[in-house]
Amino acid sequence: MYTSREDVTEAIVIARVRKGLNWADIARQVGRSKEWTTCACLGQMVFSEDEARTVIGLFDLDQTALPWLCAVPYKGSFDGGAPGDPLLYRWYEMLSVYGPALKELIHEEFGDGIMSAIDFRMQVGREADPAGDRVRVTISGKFLPYRPY
Amino acid sequence: MYTSREDVTEAIVIARVRKGLNWADIARQVGRSKEWTTCACLGQMVFSEDEARTVIGLFDLDQTALPWLCAVPYKGSFDGGAPGDPLLYRWYEMLSVYGPALKELIHEEFGDGIMSAIDFRMQVGREADPAGDRVRVTISGKFLPYRPY
Amino acid sequence: MYTSREDVTEAIVIARVRKGLNWADIARQVGRSKEWTTCACLGQMVFSEDEARTVIGLFDLDQTALPWLCAVPYKGSFDGGAPGDPLLYRWYEMLSVYGPALKELIHEEFGDGIMSAIDFRMQVGREADPAGDRVRVTISGKFLPYRPY
Amino acid sequence: MYTSREDVTEAIVIARVRKGLNWADIARQVGRSKEWTTCACLGQMVFSEDEARTVIGLFDLDQTALPWLCAVPYKGSFDGGAPGDPLLYRWYEMLSVYGPALKELIHEEFGDGIMSAIDFRMQVGREADPAGDRVRVTISGKFLPYRPY
Amino acid sequence: MYTSREDVTEAIVIARVRKGLNWADIARQVGRSKEWTTCACLGQMVFSEDEARTVIGLFDLDQTALPWLCAVPYKGSFDGGAPGDPLLYRWYEMLSVYGPALKELIHEEFGDGIMSAIDFRMQVGREADPAGDRVRVTISGKFLPYRPY
Amino acid sequence: MYTSREDVTEAIVIARVRKGLNWADIARQVGRSKEWTTCACLGQMVFSEDEARTVIGLFDLDQTALPWLCAVPYKGSFDGGAPGDPLLYRWYEMLSVYGPALKELIHEEFGDGIMSAIDFRMQVGREADPAGDRVRVTISGKFLPYRPY
Amino acid sequence: MYTSREDVTEAIVIARVRKGLNWADIARQVGRSKEWTTCACLGQMVFSEDEARTVIGLFDLDQTALPWLCAVPYKGSFDGGAPGDPLLYRWYEMLSVYGPALKELIHEEFGDGIMSAIDFRMQVGREADPAGDRVRVTISGKFLPYRPY
Amino acid sequence: MYTSREDVTEAIVIARVRKGLNWADIARQVGRSKEWTTCACLGQMVFSEDEARTVIGLFDLDQTALPWLCAVPYKGSFDGGAPGDPLLYRWYEMLSVYGPALKELIHEEFGDGIMSAIDFRMQVGREADPAGDRVRVTISGKFLPYRPY
Amino acid sequence: MYTSREDVTEAIVIARVRKGLNWADIARQVGRSKEWTTCACLGQMVFSEDEARTVIGLFDLDQTALPWLCAVPYKGSFDGGAPGDPLLYRWYEMLSVYGPALKELIHEEFGDGIMSAIDFRMQVGREADPAGDRVRVTISGKFLPYRPY
Amino acid sequence: MYTSREDVTEAIVIARVRKGLNWADIARQVGRSKEWTTCACLGQMVFSEDEARTVIGLFDLDQTALPWLCAVPYKGSFDGGAPGDPLLYRWYEMLSVYGPALKELIHEEFGDGIMSAIDFRMQVGREADPAGDRVRVTISGKFLPYRPY
Repeated sequence: MYTSREDVTEAIVIARVRKGLNWADIARQVGRSKEWTTCACLGQMVFSEDEARTVIGLFDLDQTALPWLCAVPYKGSFDGGAPGDPLLYRWYEMLSVYGPALKELIHEEFGDGIMSAIDFRMQVGREADPAGDRVRVTISGKFLPYRPY
Repeated sequence: MYTSREDVTEAIVIARVRKGLNWADIARQVGRSKEWTTCACLGQMVFSEDEARTVIGLFDLDQTALPWLCAVPYKGSFDGGAPGDPLLYRWYEMLSVYGPALKELIHEEFGDGIMSAIDFRMQVGREADPAGDRVRVTISGKFLPYRPY
Repeated sequence: MYTSREDVTEAIVIARVRKGLNWADIARQVGRSKEWTTCACLGQMVFSEDEARTVIGLFDLDQTALPWLCAVPYKGSFDGGAPGDPLLYRWYEMLSVYGPALKELIHEEFGDGIMSAIDFRMQVGREADPAGDRVRVTISGKFLPYRPY
Repeated sequence: MYTSREDVTEAIVIARVRKGLNWADIARQVGRSKEWTTCACLGQMVFSEDEARTVIGLFDLDQTALPWLCAVPYKGSFDGGAPGDPLLYRWYEMLSVYGPALKELIHEEFGDGIMSAIDFRMQVGREADPAGDRVRVTISGKFLPYRPY
Repeated sequence: MYTSREDVTEAIVIARVRKGLNWADIARQVGRSKEWTTCACLGQMVFSEDEARTVIGLFDLDQTALPWLCAVPYKGSFDGGAPGDPLLYRWYEMLSVYGPALKELIHEEFGDGIMSAIDFRMQVGREADPAGDRVRVTISGKFLPYRPY
Repeated sequence: MYTSREDVTEAIVIARVRKGLNWADIARQVGRSKEWTTCACLGQMVFSEDEARTVIGLFDLDQTALPWLCAVPYKGSFDGGAPGDPLLYRWYEMLSVYGPALKELIHEEFGDGIMSAIDFRMQVGREADPAGDRVRVTISGKFLPYRPY
Repeated sequence: MYTSREDVTEAIVIARVRKGLNWADIARQVGRSKEWTTCACLGQMVFSEDEARTVIGLFDLDQTALPWLCAVPYKGSFDGGAPGDPLLYRWYEMLSVYGPALKELIHEEFGDGIMSAIDFRMQVGREADPAGDRVRVTISGKFLPYRPY
Repeated sequence: MYTSREDVTEAIVIARVRKGLNWADIARQVGRSKEWTTCACLGQMVFSEDEARTVIGLFDLDQTALPWLCAVPYKGSFDGGAPGDPLLYRWYEMLSVYGPALKELIHEEFGDGIMSAIDFRMQVGREADPAGDRVRVTISGKFLPYRPY
Repeated sequence: MYTSREDVTEAIVIARVRKGLNWADIARQVGRSKEWTTCACLGQMVFSEDEARTVIGLFDLDQTALPWLCAVPYKGSFDGGAPGDPLLYRWYEMLSVYGPALKELIHEEFGDGIMSAIDFRMQVGREADPAGDRVRVTISGKFLPYRPY
Repeated sequence: MYTSREDVTEAIVIARVRKGLNWADIARQVGRSKEWTTCACLGQMVFSEDEARTVIGLFDLDQTALPWLCAVPYKGSFDGGAPGDPLLYRWYEMLSVYGPALKELIHEEFGDGIMSAIDFRMQVGREADPAGDRVRVTISGKFLPYRPY
């Protein structure tokens, strides 16, 4: 019996390692992008009831997970030290909300290691959109693996 | 006479507002991308001597700026609160080093406002590269303007 | 058996998600505004004995909840970083005491998302009152939903 | 000669006390609400060129203030301790950006004192809007004056 | 079986709410002032063996509470942010050691609410004492109740 | 020429040491209690115009001090670490606003040293008042002098 | 049954003390250097499946440890206060990731005590490497034992 | 005229960039290792009078620098967040005292960039010494340059 | 069964209060000074096997305590920041008030270096005084000089 | 002209280094112990007028230093948190490792209370030792008991 969204998230994290599931496969079955799905499984987004049922099936959760997966969670994974400027803050929040998902997806694709912030390029542009233009930022950093010795 | 890189950065910031220069134009004259050039003008990267001379000309700096523009600076613009995990930390550092440049470039393109972290999409992928594969992350967020009332 | 107000609050939060109850309905049964009731159910206010009995019934709590619901709790939900000026501090405290209730009520009305601090208006005025005039502040911010992709 | 937006803000604060100007009068001359105008004069918003010229006139600033008043500033007046949840954070940011203006306007209307967070009421509602519905929050707190003794 | 003074304090807090006991009555039975007794029951002072036995009886504690009630506890209830100056620090420490007792006694006398720091007076004087003169400070602040709405 | 309330406070502190003035005498001339006057001279309260003129005369300030002494200041002298509970917070704020005055008045009466928080007594009571009852707290602590050796 | 990498690390730490195993022997059996092996056993690195099976055998862990030992962990053992400069940060991170292993290995070789940062020498040099040159830093500090008295 | 060791350090930093001097050359002239000399020039160690005279000559300092270069300075360049364990703390302190020198020497040898904490090896050993054995740690990390784009 | 040194320390603390043992007696039986023994029992030092057996007997611990009492613990009891307990705080304040003088006097007598906290002894005693007895603490630590290389 | 005690302290520090004065000689001329005199010269204690005149003569201060040297200063040199300087840090670490033992032993000898940091004396000396000389510090502080009332 789950008594908080954090309980459900912990159960998902354990089940995924135990069953050796892939985020990409999970996303395909949920019917969403792998970025959003990973972020939601890690407790940051709200599932529809149908999606929640799929999630419960995939990870063998019991039915008490359902209302928690569909309720709005407390979000964020960082503890503080955020920049005060509103524009910079949104990037920090993005990292707090999406950071654990980013970590999972990079490890799933590349294994243990980091994405370099030194051997690194960034590009900022405009994406026209009838509902209001969007900022598009593309970031490319070399993957550096941890190697045993 | 400048006695630190911070002095030179402050002079550049003042001159740019006074003269109404554009980061995109500045980058064209320096001969680098606007992302790297803005980041470097804000005191986070090392210029070659030729680039430094161009920068000195563009902003009417005196010649004592030259060795500071070519020396390795103390980097980063955030005060702390960084996540401990190495992968997440690189993203935080990227924000600390590139954040002020990001702020400048978004305001230059869109005016006062923020890039939404709510109306927001992210995509993670692999970029094949003979010198070692790279992580490519594309981020798209709606621009929200501040409006007077 | 509950041994602190925090125990009772946690039980209320769990029961509400499990039973799918609405804060607006709960408030109607308690006989108070939905703002005060939500804030009190989340552990920040003192119930009268009658109100406490209604709350115990609504959430199927056991009778040991009664004295805790009627005792003065330790209040506040934030960890620190408060502004030092007394006037600004009251606003920070208001956010610490009412913030979780605000979050619940906005999500109940609008679903997952935020109230924009960018597309935003504020109005400050005076409210005449025989017991001493009051400050009235009206705040309006666009609701921005999180959308899956 | 001003070399940052902070310089200009400091000059405005000094001039206002020296000349005994009212925020309400200043706003009328700028042609905006008193809430937005106070917030902008305190360095948190961007003026149009026309508005900036009015501001320069009202406070006897020199002409180097113009580009700073029209450039996007670094915003926020708090040092940290922000709540991590995105919805709660927007309220904290609102306080950081609008707080000093709120303080000025309450003191202008009521004198030295605070707005009570104890003798206090809050109401949350929906404001229909064709461009997307808005959250409307009305807050009412008794004014408590500091009295000498 | 209690294994720390904190355990005993928690048991006292729970028993007092459960039994609806008054701090003033408790102090009368212990034979000390209500200020010192409340502070000691909340884990900040050392009881004599006789007093400890009375406390154990009043709150139905088991006998293992005895040595803990008579041992010197780790004191203080605040986490930090203390002023560095020794004179100011003593006041901060007084608040840390006596604060929870102060909170209990004000709520016992007045109910839920606060003592105003705005509608407030303070008086500092000297109290002659053969063992060394004492500083006497008298503080008077209006009680402001929380009221449901 | 003073450009902030902090400037005026600093000038008062310097003039008082230079001229060897007593807070008790200053208060008599201002016509207020020594507690409120010291607190106000240290930058925490608003003077009336008449009182401000007396202050300017007593400390030989120039006339630009007048509007600052009559404007509402940013208050508080502590940096953070405040307790979250509203009742406890008011005491912390009282210490932040009145602490420096308390320090001055104790040193003026007793010389260098501290008021003991160990050899210490506190009494909490009710003060009936037609405008709403007040909490009265009396605090008595032994004065401990620093002695050279 | 282990439900996180932290569980497995705790079990390893307990088993090692209980069985009196040496890090140097453990490393020999895992077939890696003692530095990397200690760091990995303390939860900072990823084992191959074969290495994980050896680890499970050595410490008598149950089989549910396997997927956790092979999954990428959350790394780092320090809480913050990191320097902002990227070069200095890498050294801080190295200490956060390798520090507990360093502590184990120095104690294993020398017993209880510290490596002096006063009686201390450091040498920085270049290590040619076809895959890109490396920085080599050699550090020598006197071992100072804790001695009972 | 210098009035603190920090003044002298700042003058050395400025003179070195202005004159384009090398730490390796400076060390040769001072007659000490480049690691110790850089650390001492950056204000962390005490020079002998002879060494101080050489330093004054190399950087064209005035003679008031002499007593400061020979007096024991306040050391350390980090602000906090140190680990509590004494062994780990010495490493943190080493980084605080030697970190800025390490940064200078790596940049002098390799240019702008970092030493990787990912592509990284560490070796811990014993160095026999008649005055008490020493801990020897050898660290090797790939150099990663910042590259403009 | 104990699974960490902290477990063993907690068991010692509980047993000592329960059995009413004296630190001075415990030290006599362990055969070490009362200062070192108390410090070691509280989890900060390593016991020899013989001493550990005595400790286990004195406090009725089970045999699994043995390897923990003989292993090097993580040391330190502060978090960074001043301790909240009034007795410990006075020592911290003493360091804050006298620390810079201590630094000056040690450097004046010994030159650049530190006083070891590892090669260190402490003795606590009573100093009879008609005006009230005094605590006398004598501390002896080896001086370790910084040496150039 | 000095405008604060900090100004006077800074002037003393500079004059002492410039003139090469010894704390021991200074103390002899002031007629107090070297411990108290150094502490007072560094801004932590109050001088009598006679002592202040000696200090002014020894360091060639101008006469405006007099009232500052005789006024009660804001004391303390730490910010909260551990000090960064290696010598001061060892004392902080000593407190962290030995503090709980110190607390136990003082309470065992004296009961509940504190050791005064106000009614306090300290003496620093050298202890010859063939294995390297030692720093010996003797500290004596009055015991102040908590007394019930």
